Amino acid sequence: MKTCAIIPVSRFTHAKTRLSPTLSPSEREGLLKAMLMDVSGALARHVDRVLVISADEDVLEYAYSLGLKILEEEGERDLNGALEQAMDFCAPEFDRVIITPSDIPLIGKADVSNLLDHASRADVVIAPANGGGTNTLILRPSAMSLRFGDCSFFEHIHEARERGLSVSVYDSFYLSLDVNTAEDLGEIILHGEGTHAREYLRKLRFTVKPSRGSDRLEVSRSP
Amino acid sequence: MKTCAIIPVSRFTHAKTRLSPTLSPSEREGLLKAMLMDVSGALARHVDRVLVISADEDVLEYAYSLGLKILEEEGERDLNGALEQAMDFCAPEFDRVIITPSDIPLIGKADVSNLLDHASRADVVIAPANGGGTNTLILRPSAMSLRFGDCSFFEHIHEARERGLSVSVYDSFYLSLDVNTAEDLGEIILHGEGTHAREYLRKLRFTVKPSRGSDRLEVSRSP
Repeated sequence: MKTCAIIPVSRFTHAKTRLSPTLSPSEREGLLKAMLMDVSGALARHVDRVLVISADEDVLEYAYSLGLKILEEEGERDLNGALEQAMDFCAPEFDRVIITPSDIPLIGKADVSNLLDHASRADVVIAPANGGGTNTLILRPSAMSLRFGDCSFFEHIHEARERGLSVSVYDSFYLSLDVNTAEDLGEIILHGEGTHAREYLRKLRFTVKPSRGSDRLEVSRSP
Repeated sequence: MKTCAIIPVSRFTHAKTRLSPTLSPSEREGLLKAMLMDVSGALARHVDRVLVISADEDVLEYAYSLGLKILEEEGERDLNGALEQAMDFCAPEFDRVIITPSDIPLIGKADVSNLLDHASRADVVIAPANGGGTNTLILRPSAMSLRFGDCSFFEHIHEARERGLSVSVYDSFYLSLDVNTAEDLGEIILHGEGTHAREYLRKLRFTVKPSRGSDRLEVSRSP
């Protein structure tokens, strides 16, 4: 089955604002770029093409510099609209698409080929994210409407079943970890050996230690 | 391979203090009991025996009432000491043990038989927890010293490799979710359909919604 990975990236600047107490704007940009390298690199080893869709020139330029296929968003679309544009773009040439966010740098620790194998046994494969979202969705292009947003994991399963599509849940800790909070940075430092994201955080002299507070992990910068 | 599941339970009272802003002491006790039913029930379908080890009379009585095998801790031991006592107890009769905490109520959503199959291909099988811990460890009884505690996932892998034991990491979102914070309760309400833990939280009229703050999920009690 010919497969295209679709990675939507909104922008590098003014993104990940929940990380602003921990990372400066330029550091957040650096981390986003490092994570896109991790995600696209892990997927490129298993699919026929990796496509980044964005409305942001910087993102498209950077993705192009990584050797990725790029697609400029048409008009003012939300995430689902942009992904539907990307699926339409892929439909003539690919049997299926694998949609992942750009901020799951531990994807390479998951068994991506096993993940793709699941798609030979179900119409839709979906991997849960922390917080009720979707961190991977595999389907035939435009097999169903996309429901990214709040609690999208359950919305996507509902949408697939409404259309009589079979669903396989891919249960993965590494895929569930998207990066939005300081605690998430801690998980990347712990588990991200060999990733660009961890290397970037190390260069910023971040370290992590367990915490007994409302977070399990506490990250800090060594002097 | 004859397999015994070992579930260490310290106590029901004065436990899970990080949940005290959200649950009363008696509610925390009720949740701990519900989760033990979920964990022991999910394991019992796949192993030859489920053993609960504790120094607490209430815990042992409750586990016994669930039809589980019980073992009283000898003397003042820490978690690793208690588990080593339990492994010694199992060694004459079982080829391997699967050690899990009692607070991973979504274990039944994971593929437990697939998890156990991994133990036929490696000396040690380990599943990561959020925060760097270990939420499942499968090994021959006393094949190595146990390192439960801070960052135990990495400590256990290091210990196994030091002894020349092969290690298989079992990558599971559902196994990674132990319950320590209000946000964790949110994940149980979202993903825990059919579990005693979710049913218990529903009875307490808890609901969950996405949040854009430092937590991804916010739980609250409907009036």
